[in-house]
Amino acid sequence: MIFLRFFLLFSLFSLAFSHEHLNSHHLGRPLIIEYSENVETQYKEFEEELRLQCTSWRFAVEANNLSPWKTIPQECADYVKDYMMGRAYIVDLERVSKEAGNYAKSVELSGDGKDIWVFDIDETLLSNLPYYAEHGYGLEVFGHVKFDKWVEKAMAPAIEPSLKLYEEVLGLGFKVILLTGRSERHRNFTIENLINAGFRDWHQLILRASDDHGKLATIYKSEKRSEMAKDGNRIIGNSGDQWSDLLGSQMSIRSFKLPNPMYYIP
Amino acid sequence: MIFLRFFLLFSLFSLAFSHEHLNSHHLGRPLIIEYSENVETQYKEFEEELRLQCTSWRFAVEANNLSPWKTIPQECADYVKDYMMGRAYIVDLERVSKEAGNYAKSVELSGDGKDIWVFDIDETLLSNLPYYAEHGYGLEVFGHVKFDKWVEKAMAPAIEPSLKLYEEVLGLGFKVILLTGRSERHRNFTIENLINAGFRDWHQLILRASDDHGKLATIYKSEKRSEMAKDGNRIIGNSGDQWSDLLGSQMSIRSFKLPNPMYYIP
Repeated sequence: MIFLRFFLLFSLFSLAFSHEHLNSHHLGRPLIIEYSENVETQYKEFEEELRLQCTSWRFAVEANNLSPWKTIPQECADYVKDYMMGRAYIVDLERVSKEAGNYAKSVELSGDGKDIWVFDIDETLLSNLPYYAEHGYGLEVFGHVKFDKWVEKAMAPAIEPSLKLYEEVLGLGFKVILLTGRSERHRNFTIENLINAGFRDWHQLILRASDDHGKLATIYKSEKRSEMAKDGNRIIGNSGDQWSDLLGSQMSIRSFKLPNPMYYIP
Repeated sequence: MIFLRFFLLFSLFSLAFSHEHLNSHHLGRPLIIEYSENVETQYKEFEEELRLQCTSWRFAVEANNLSPWKTIPQECADYVKDYMMGRAYIVDLERVSKEAGNYAKSVELSGDGKDIWVFDIDETLLSNLPYYAEHGYGLEVFGHVKFDKWVEKAMAPAIEPSLKLYEEVLGLGFKVILLTGRSERHRNFTIENLINAGFRDWHQLILRASDDHGKLATIYKSEKRSEMAKDGNRIIGNSGDQWSDLLGSQMSIRSFKLPNPMYYIP
């Protein structure tokens, strides 16, 4: 490595020097090398600016500042891929799991079995990353038919930090309700997948019935939370990767937004 | 530059070579150079990890995943400073202003003068960055007395992208209501500051009255929004840097969360 660098520098050095002789009116500065350094600098600046813009976009997603969007920005395709496949996504998942766990432990439960923790499923308990890796990490427009085929494989792995939180809240005595935008006709695949991924002992699994289709997720999930509250339940915690899992009526005392820069569900 | 690099490398090269002669049992590899490269690599890895952790913390702030916090994490002091003083903060402010502006333009106003846009003041319309720059960008515990003195100077500059949005929504025919956690006794200083910074023509400026002190910001601001709604107003948009500006009852149709990693108001 050091040899290579040495010879490379030496060659560039000689080249610059010979060049200088040919262009003596150029103030004796090694222009070729300066040019190549400029290109490198410009490329780095371009990369830095792109990272800044895509980080800013991701912040806007996570802070719920964006209008409904169908696909990730084309120029952020590599950024989103790197985020999802690298340590940053895991670090973010671990942080939200830990924060939620600390909160869960801090709550004094009534002991009447009416303290509820609501979990969304996709990108909250189960990861569809193997699917999205095949479909541009959100760069492709969402395809129901293809995604349904993936759901029916029941192969989505657990999001490990969420499984940890799940077991923690169960252990603390919360009643767990799973509230998903998946269709009722996927109930058995979903149960199979959840069990294979290590989830167990939920109190209720709520999927979209036929008259829920066509409702915005925020409306559908708010309605379901209202039903929970009517039964005298207290929604103490709610974990979801979409703001439509968390906002609306009968909001949880505290909500936890898991990261998801790949898609948006209104 | 090129000369310096050349001679430095050459010196290291010679040193490594001479070292190799003294340690011939060491497989002939230039250990000193490898060591110095390791230190550099380790330092870069450490810096990269710190950046990752602090970015993750900032996400948790912006996604409202954290419990009330009093100061920024010690290890993120430089990160927060760099963010606030660099381009990233400006890019984020511009994005949220642009998104809010696009939304404002998309709304069909009733024309009865009851379409409201609510703005928070501190870190939303006015920037206290000159104050926080003197107080560790959130590393110091918030000091009411010191901050009050700053408020009474009425010198906080406008957040330019917010001023742009402010003028846009005024121009579209929204009624602007300013809803701030500042105390009623700072009304005149606040008006002076707002006008000096370029803000004008607000419909109402709501500050904390004596019986609002001690209320959580979420409660106080929800109560004030409820009063607006009772008057038949429709809260179409709400801009704030704190989740306590945006959440609670009578939430706006759409809310816009401005970035603020320096402090948290529950």
